[in-house]
Amino acid sequence: MQRMTVFQRFSRTFRENPSLAKMLVVFTVSGGGLMAYSEAKSENEMNIVDSTEAEGKKKRVVVLGTGWAGTSFLKNLKNSSYDVQVISPRNYFAFTPLLPSVTCGTVESRSIVEPIRNIVRKKNVDVHYWEAECFKIDAENKKVYCRSNLTSNLGEKEEIVVDYDYLVIGIGARANTFNIPGVAENCHFLKEIEDAQRIRRTVIDCFERANLPNLSEEERKRILHFVVVGGGPAGVEFAAELHDYVTEDLVKLYPKVKDAVKITLLEATDHILNMFDKRITVFAEEKFQRDGIDVKTGAMVVKVSDKEISTKEVKNGGAISSVPYGMVVWATGIGTRPVIMDFMKQIGQANRRVLATDEWLRVEGYDGIYALGDCATINQRKVMEDIWAIFRKADKDNSGTLTVKEFQEVLADICERYPQVGLYLKNRQMRSLFDLLKDSKGDAVKESVEVNLEEFKAALSQVDSQMKNLPATAQVAAQQGSYLADCFNRMEECEKNPEGPLRFRGEGRHRFRPFRYKHFGQFAPLGGEQTAAQLPGDWVSIGQSTQWLWYSVYASKLVSWRTRALVISDWGRRFIFGRDSSGI
Amino acid sequence: MQRMTVFQRFSRTFRENPSLAKMLVVFTVSGGGLMAYSEAKSENEMNIVDSTEAEGKKKRVVVLGTGWAGTSFLKNLKNSSYDVQVISPRNYFAFTPLLPSVTCGTVESRSIVEPIRNIVRKKNVDVHYWEAECFKIDAENKKVYCRSNLTSNLGEKEEIVVDYDYLVIGIGARANTFNIPGVAENCHFLKEIEDAQRIRRTVIDCFERANLPNLSEEERKRILHFVVVGGGPAGVEFAAELHDYVTEDLVKLYPKVKDAVKITLLEATDHILNMFDKRITVFAEEKFQRDGIDVKTGAMVVKVSDKEISTKEVKNGGAISSVPYGMVVWATGIGTRPVIMDFMKQIGQANRRVLATDEWLRVEGYDGIYALGDCATINQRKVMEDIWAIFRKADKDNSGTLTVKEFQEVLADICERYPQVGLYLKNRQMRSLFDLLKDSKGDAVKESVEVNLEEFKAALSQVDSQMKNLPATAQVAAQQGSYLADCFNRMEECEKNPEGPLRFRGEGRHRFRPFRYKHFGQFAPLGGEQTAAQLPGDWVSIGQSTQWLWYSVYASKLVSWRTRALVISDWGRRFIFGRDSSGI
Repeated sequence: MQRMTVFQRFSRTFRENPSLAKMLVVFTVSGGGLMAYSEAKSENEMNIVDSTEAEGKKKRVVVLGTGWAGTSFLKNLKNSSYDVQVISPRNYFAFTPLLPSVTCGTVESRSIVEPIRNIVRKKNVDVHYWEAECFKIDAENKKVYCRSNLTSNLGEKEEIVVDYDYLVIGIGARANTFNIPGVAENCHFLKEIEDAQRIRRTVIDCFERANLPNLSEEERKRILHFVVVGGGPAGVEFAAELHDYVTEDLVKLYPKVKDAVKITLLEATDHILNMFDKRITVFAEEKFQRDGIDVKTGAMVVKVSDKEISTKEVKNGGAISSVPYGMVVWATGIGTRPVIMDFMKQIGQANRRVLATDEWLRVEGYDGIYALGDCATINQRKVMEDIWAIFRKADKDNSGTLTVKEFQEVLADICERYPQVGLYLKNRQMRSLFDLLKDSKGDAVKESVEVNLEEFKAALSQVDSQMKNLPATAQVAAQQGSYLADCFNRMEECEKNPEGPLRFRGEGRHRFRPFRYKHFGQFAPLGGEQTAAQLPGDWVSIGQSTQWLWYSVYASKLVSWRTRALVISDWGRRFIFGRDSSGI
Repeated sequence: MQRMTVFQRFSRTFRENPSLAKMLVVFTVSGGGLMAYSEAKSENEMNIVDSTEAEGKKKRVVVLGTGWAGTSFLKNLKNSSYDVQVISPRNYFAFTPLLPSVTCGTVESRSIVEPIRNIVRKKNVDVHYWEAECFKIDAENKKVYCRSNLTSNLGEKEEIVVDYDYLVIGIGARANTFNIPGVAENCHFLKEIEDAQRIRRTVIDCFERANLPNLSEEERKRILHFVVVGGGPAGVEFAAELHDYVTEDLVKLYPKVKDAVKITLLEATDHILNMFDKRITVFAEEKFQRDGIDVKTGAMVVKVSDKEISTKEVKNGGAISSVPYGMVVWATGIGTRPVIMDFMKQIGQANRRVLATDEWLRVEGYDGIYALGDCATINQRKVMEDIWAIFRKADKDNSGTLTVKEFQEVLADICERYPQVGLYLKNRQMRSLFDLLKDSKGDAVKESVEVNLEEFKAALSQVDSQMKNLPATAQVAAQQGSYLADCFNRMEECEKNPEGPLRFRGEGRHRFRPFRYKHFGQFAPLGGEQTAAQLPGDWVSIGQSTQWLWYSVYASKLVSWRTRALVISDWGRRFIFGRDSSGI
């Protein structure tokens, strides 16, 4: 503890004297030592053991964002040899899966947020949080430029420049308008707490407005026409929540206008919830039909004016039609944030749609920069790209052919490095690579299997078709965050004893195993205490019991006991008193 | 019930056909019958018994505002012979005494509001609510002009013109800046829910901002200097809440900046809480001193710039000094709303500061217009103004002198009509008016007391000094609302059998007893689970037990079981988990 204090004083000196700190960083970086850590978890915790010049200085980790990825990283980071700086415009973590519940007041907005300072406070890692928004990443000089978003009389928008040794980017995505005219101006999005609050107020406003005297019946119907764009889980859940809110609570208070309410769900593809099992899609579509929610599939939004939304039929000649609306919620697709676009240009990814990382979540070509969550996507290495390197590495005796024994030695590494190989075998119901090779060789006996490069290539030619991008979900982001924290926790350990697969292109082994996503299933709440769930192994569950499963899973996943207690009491309140309709 | 339905259809026809309704109103009004009611609570409830032309039509009562006055009126109105229209920009009632708790998140904003539709829903009275703000009252033509405050794409700000037979004005007051430069631009007020939410976010913003790196110590101290202007109950409670929030919760999360926090309370008079008993004032000042809250009395704010607040010493030469601040909360004084000012000009009250009503809450000179709560003040009739009329009325035999017997007959009426008389006697420890008269006559025997006008005048000359305006509190507004509802409930009954005091200037009796305020005491929460209370009879209670009294009184006074449950669970949450510091 004594040493800790000494060190803290040390680090404060640096933080209060930026030029000193900068000098030291330049010194460190120019030293060229890539990995420099203190001896984590050892007795002499604070006596830096480091071969580079950065003696007495912890590695600076800058985390951008306090969403699922960033928070999960921070929660799981246990190695005290880092000096962590968290930068985000939101000083809290929001449990976003409950956002649709917030839009209708089933759950209060404050019940699903936890201050990031609370989350990181008890840890033995030095974590500093700064409320600011990053507007530029300078990968060359290892700096991020941030701007405080606190305005009013608190001073000018201050700019902060922060140096890093490692940068963890987890700033999420923005709503994607697909450049459709009028969307940005007239639609509500559903990404932030503020969005949900605004939607809630707008729903009430629509009802109050429709209730005013002297309105034509037509205008009243327009105002109470709620349009949800996007038949994915978010859009479907919001439409369902809104329907419950209207039928369970609002009609009692606004009896005059209840017949004028209409909810429309627009989806460009043929079915809503098309990432789910067919049984769920069918159930959802039927339930919505019974509920009177108008599901329009194959309808692509082409324009949103201030009072009308225009859609184009995807099939049947593409007729364009317009309907008046009172509120549109845009719940389809995510886009890249400007700061990431700018960063992509800088690092030569200008042609890509999303920031690409390798399987270790490193931004390609930049060892110290990690990107996770919705702001990035893992660019899986294709087997075909490396086929020659794999063959050469496996063919230890350089015979030009691979024998069974040679295979056996690299098999696990191949499957680990290229997960699509394993998936391919599983889907073809083959037990191992041997079967695959056997196939390509005809009916030869297993022991005598021996393939050359061309045969090897042919055998693996279909493998890459199994590659899929991970969905942009909280689950993925959280797993990536904890994976990365785990890597950071054991960085030095793994530097000495790499645990990853063979480097096929290079020498030695990778430090870490690549990130592997474990899908725990997905829920689709459909309103009226009905929920559909698709669990691993294509297990589908629909109905009220699934709603209770949803309640228990979400309650258990909440970030703190406080939020857990609040959300559960919110649910209780809703059961007893219904949802509130005050316009605040 | 059948008749009810018929009538409802009738009245709907009128509402949907405004010109028809207007014609009828004009017809009714021009008929000149002042009081025209249906036979409330009688068998033939809907068969209008009315001497005017307004057959088949309920009297239209328009209520402006859903604060304490308006809501209390609506809650207590039970006579179904009115068609009530409530107009307010807020579709909810807010339990304002808990606003200071909302500023620091001890209680959630939504926990202290109840939709006005919920409050009026179960009643047998026809109540319609419209979310709009009144911007003009036309007393001549009995119309109010309102504007919907719902903007966005829901259409233009619609104007609504509403006719009334009775108008109940309860739109409250606005914060009074006393035209001090910079106050409106730079200060936070504490009147509405939104104000409290904004203050909460600003407090967090200040802490986040002060926590940023690269700030000078001076700037950090500026940002964390919270100034509260006004040493009344609101200002004191807010300062205490803020102090608790900082010391109990925020210092844990912002340890770096805790020493820079400073709270200053500015009060222009010599003491804070000067409407309370001295013991409370002293206790509060001592407690604040122990807590480190800097109480500056005798300091009048003269200017607020974006970063500095300037005060002038009231005594000692009036030196002006300026201090830098991060946030100023303006909790001093209330002002008249523009629509009321405009209305006052119209009715010849342009010279007054506040809208004046008589003791029956009627706007002077306008029988059908009532004003209650913070937007009006009761202009008590002075005894001296009416002294001649009183004398004449009492002197039944026109003898020019008053005898004991003559007195006895009008005594109760005098005391009821002019409550200051009763107060005066009580303060002088006299049992009756006889003592007063005896005083003025010397030691004469009771039976032989007989006074002429001059002697009568002399005896009562000091009485009017006892008149005091009622404080602008929720308690007063609520009592006025229920008083007025009671008058409306029994309007016809009392028309037939007036229950009020003698009309000294006119003939007969007043219909109703004048409004009389009953003071149930006042709390001043001082933070740290300490509350002071001044109860009727100058009973003073200070300490933790009073805090529990505060909890129980406020919980019991909340408007609905829902808000009660929410506020109590908020208190519980605060005890267990502390206050949240998310910037939402």
